[in-house]
Amino acid sequence: MDHKKFMDIALAEAKTGLAEGGLPIGAILVENGKVIGRGHNKRVQDGNPVAHGEMDCLRNAGRRPNYRNTILYTTLSPCMMCSGTIVQFKIPKVVIGEAENFEGNIEFLKSRDVDITLLNDADCTVMMKEFIENNPELWNEDIAE
Amino acid sequence: MDHKKFMDIALAEAKTGLAEGGLPIGAILVENGKVIGRGHNKRVQDGNPVAHGEMDCLRNAGRRPNYRNTILYTTLSPCMMCSGTIVQFKIPKVVIGEAENFEGNIEFLKSRDVDITLLNDADCTVMMKEFIENNPELWNEDIAE
Repeated sequence: MDHKKFMDIALAEAKTGLAEGGLPIGAILVENGKVIGRGHNKRVQDGNPVAHGEMDCLRNAGRRPNYRNTILYTTLSPCMMCSGTIVQFKIPKVVIGEAENFEGNIEFLKSRDVDITLLNDADCTVMMKEFIENNPELWNEDIAE
Repeated sequence: MDHKKFMDIALAEAKTGLAEGGLPIGAILVENGKVIGRGHNKRVQDGNPVAHGEMDCLRNAGRRPNYRNTILYTTLSPCMMCSGTIVQFKIPKVVIGEAENFEGNIEFLKSRDVDITLLNDADCTVMMKEFIENNPELWNEDIAE
């Protein structure tokens, strides 16, 4: 499984969000090596506080009977909303770009038997670090801090 | 605080969803005694698996700096997606119509210091029981069982 190849697609989603004036967080859903959903944070673009990257991706992937064979890639460690969703939907594996700018809920996910791979991807980390430094209020709003 | 009065508004949302051919689960967000958001499950209507009643309500309430003085009313005990969202958004209080048809995550919410009131509302319970009996596949899809 070429995690970097898929993470770069999630990163491209994040950069699309940034170009739209939004928060640069992207996600894709992969099933048997195929991308079946992609999305990015749309808080600003849609005025929608629940449209985190992972949520937008799952919305775009549409209705499914189950998520048994899926992997969720996300550029940033999932918040509690997105982590709860991963557990509820029984997504078995999550690949995370980085957890340096936001720790997220990796231990919670592991405690619920979600397999986690943390890439420590420098491209994801630098992008998010710059964004938070330049947009602290928007970032704090997004994670309700 | 007249919980029944507000729960009846969430119940009306659920019934709107039922009339649209969707899952009958509704929610409202109240701040200082005023309804500031309302919504219902739109999995069927929008083909959107993350549009649970609570999520649709929070989407409709729009962007906010915080949820400090809000109460979320929901006709059915929240799933892990919606519970994670409540915790992430720091919604301090949740009033639940019923937890008989779906246990939800009341203990998880309490463990994260969310104040929970469970009404055991007969109108909510009967509505959901009938729906699940008549639509077991759709219900199972909605909670990813």
